[in-house]
Amino acid sequence: MRILLIGAGGVGGAFAAIAARRDFFEALVVADYDLARAERAAATDSRYAAARVDASSAESVAALCREHRITHVMNAVDPVFDMPVFDGAFAAGADYLDMAMSLSKPHPEAPYERTGVKLGDEQFAAAEEWEEAGRLALVGIGVEPGLSDVFARYAADHLFSEIDELGTRDGANLVVTDDDGNEIFAPSFSMWTTIEECLNPPVIWERERGWFTTPPFSEPEVFDFPEGIGPVECVNVEHEEVLLMPRWVDCRRVTFKYGLGSEFITILQVLHTLGLDRTEKVRVKGVEVSPRDVVAAVLPDPATVGPRMTGKTCAGLWVTGTGKDGQPRSTYLYHVVDNSWSMAEYGHQCVVWQTAVNPVIALELLATGAWQGAGVLGPEAFDAVPFLDLLTAYGAPWGRREQ
Amino acid sequence: MRILLIGAGGVGGAFAAIAARRDFFEALVVADYDLARAERAAATDSRYAAARVDASSAESVAALCREHRITHVMNAVDPVFDMPVFDGAFAAGADYLDMAMSLSKPHPEAPYERTGVKLGDEQFAAAEEWEEAGRLALVGIGVEPGLSDVFARYAADHLFSEIDELGTRDGANLVVTDDDGNEIFAPSFSMWTTIEECLNPPVIWERERGWFTTPPFSEPEVFDFPEGIGPVECVNVEHEEVLLMPRWVDCRRVTFKYGLGSEFITILQVLHTLGLDRTEKVRVKGVEVSPRDVVAAVLPDPATVGPRMTGKTCAGLWVTGTGKDGQPRSTYLYHVVDNSWSMAEYGHQCVVWQTAVNPVIALELLATGAWQGAGVLGPEAFDAVPFLDLLTAYGAPWGRREQ
Repeated sequence: MRILLIGAGGVGGAFAAIAARRDFFEALVVADYDLARAERAAATDSRYAAARVDASSAESVAALCREHRITHVMNAVDPVFDMPVFDGAFAAGADYLDMAMSLSKPHPEAPYERTGVKLGDEQFAAAEEWEEAGRLALVGIGVEPGLSDVFARYAADHLFSEIDELGTRDGANLVVTDDDGNEIFAPSFSMWTTIEECLNPPVIWERERGWFTTPPFSEPEVFDFPEGIGPVECVNVEHEEVLLMPRWVDCRRVTFKYGLGSEFITILQVLHTLGLDRTEKVRVKGVEVSPRDVVAAVLPDPATVGPRMTGKTCAGLWVTGTGKDGQPRSTYLYHVVDNSWSMAEYGHQCVVWQTAVNPVIALELLATGAWQGAGVLGPEAFDAVPFLDLLTAYGAPWGRREQ
Repeated sequence: MRILLIGAGGVGGAFAAIAARRDFFEALVVADYDLARAERAAATDSRYAAARVDASSAESVAALCREHRITHVMNAVDPVFDMPVFDGAFAAGADYLDMAMSLSKPHPEAPYERTGVKLGDEQFAAAEEWEEAGRLALVGIGVEPGLSDVFARYAADHLFSEIDELGTRDGANLVVTDDDGNEIFAPSFSMWTTIEECLNPPVIWERERGWFTTPPFSEPEVFDFPEGIGPVECVNVEHEEVLLMPRWVDCRRVTFKYGLGSEFITILQVLHTLGLDRTEKVRVKGVEVSPRDVVAAVLPDPATVGPRMTGKTCAGLWVTGTGKDGQPRSTYLYHVVDNSWSMAEYGHQCVVWQTAVNPVIALELLATGAWQGAGVLGPEAFDAVPFLDLLTAYGAPWGRREQ
């Protein structure tokens, strides 16, 4: 296996650090538009090389694949570049993995009731082509989407006879402080992506209605997260799980709720009120910039906040329905990472580490043949057990809470 | 009198429209960095000409003054350009008026307790030079500062024997709607300046303590504004009145509270939390921009929102102390402008109209000799009565409420 990692930001850097400890692949090329950043991430392992790439160009991606005889392209850039990286991998005959899916476009008339272009639609439109070519695009294989989807498959196969709702619930108690110890606002994940997923109309799936949307921040709910994180206010957010799970897992309803907390919700609402979430460029004193890029640029780089961060992050899936014993069941399958552990063990903050570990595991399962497939597939299309076993073997076990 | 108006934005455009109806001056040159904008404002009157100017360059301002034999420079650009325009006027031997004062810098160690460089400090440092040259710089002659300072002088001369507090209180019930009639966020005044004055440490003056500062949005108070505007939440804000009034009017305390309302306060707090209020440029995908300039650029231009705005704006001064009769007295001197009136009468929205009318009146009083002076002076250094009479004659009478 010869891997091309596109993107050496927070998640890409953590991916490189985690993969360096595994021997299932032969070579890994770390590519970024910023060559120096790629070189820093590539310095960790003798199997690694660094390259410059333009992720907005399928040709640039394909050329790099051919140059390095790449078998698997690992996409770790903002999902705005999903399609060129996806197309570039296909053009070069490589398999493809990402941690998100191609972006959505709201319904032009009823954005908060009906779906427009859905997350992943552009990729699923190419599914037949990939299948016929015998190539695999494994989409949504981060932690959420990713591990949450593996949990869905596990619940369907091993815990439930009938599933009512698959409800992904994500929450944390992370705090970032400045040099003087004062708490500062510093998102632990790409602000560009956070704005994208939180301000787009949240999508819900129900067996009778199919996919539909609601206004942002709908159905607020306080969810009690495990391992000391405690109660956090969660709201509906547009997320890939809702598009993936119903395709492979039988259930009645699929939701995603994100534990944003009220301060973050206020910030996102203000950005939207002012139009600072917009991606179209505006003219500002002789130059042109995208307001959302400016918001991301003024905040600390999520890849650098680790040393100033404390707390834990939790990703998980709340499953309700009927257990194998015929009794009503409500189970939360989850994965918690403590920032102090990921920093000490890998030098990467917990949110990017937790995202990056899952595609490394998936690649290892593909390398060993434990996972096999062709077409455009989500993580729930594969057997969950070898994945969860390997997650534990990587030193970050998952948990289960009956509730 | 030959006037050079620097800045053809919201307030500059309204100034040109108001002055066009008066005959006290011979010529007016409208200058802007955007010549087309200057030409539009200059098209209203045969005494007007348009020119391009770089307000950040004292030489550019002085050269224009000499070319057009300017006697009075009217500064109507963002206060960041106060010093070059002020210096350019002096270099060319012209008198000077502005509607703000030179900017402050917070105290480096105790920004929310002590003043650093105060509003107007740079201008007052040059007062002797102006006085010796026999030239007048009339600073802070908009509506607030400006009319509020005239009210302070009026209260001291005609209503009170002893003044306890001079408290400027500004509030409005303005609403801006989009083409579909939905309420939108659209400040009626320069967002750059609003951020500057609202996020800087508010300044207060007390006879015993002198000038001192507090944290932003301190001492919230609901003030009931007249003529149907009603109660609005007001908070301390850094403003020129607090620096001007104690220099010429005997009193115990001077404050400025702005009726921001809770939504606007939240927006400003979020901008500050994210660092989007910063003026230093940041690098964003290959270009450099000031985040605050981006915030201003994404919002509707205050000069263009008039037709979509409804409501009234109120500027006023709440004076407490002992009346001429020796009894305790509490009086609110105020000026209300209804947007529908200013739009119908002048084609300019009420906030910029209310700001612009005051320097036109001041120039008329200087032209007729009713006001005379040399040095760097505030509006309270002059007799209030001819000013208030002329304000009524301009069709926008002021009011008084005993409370």
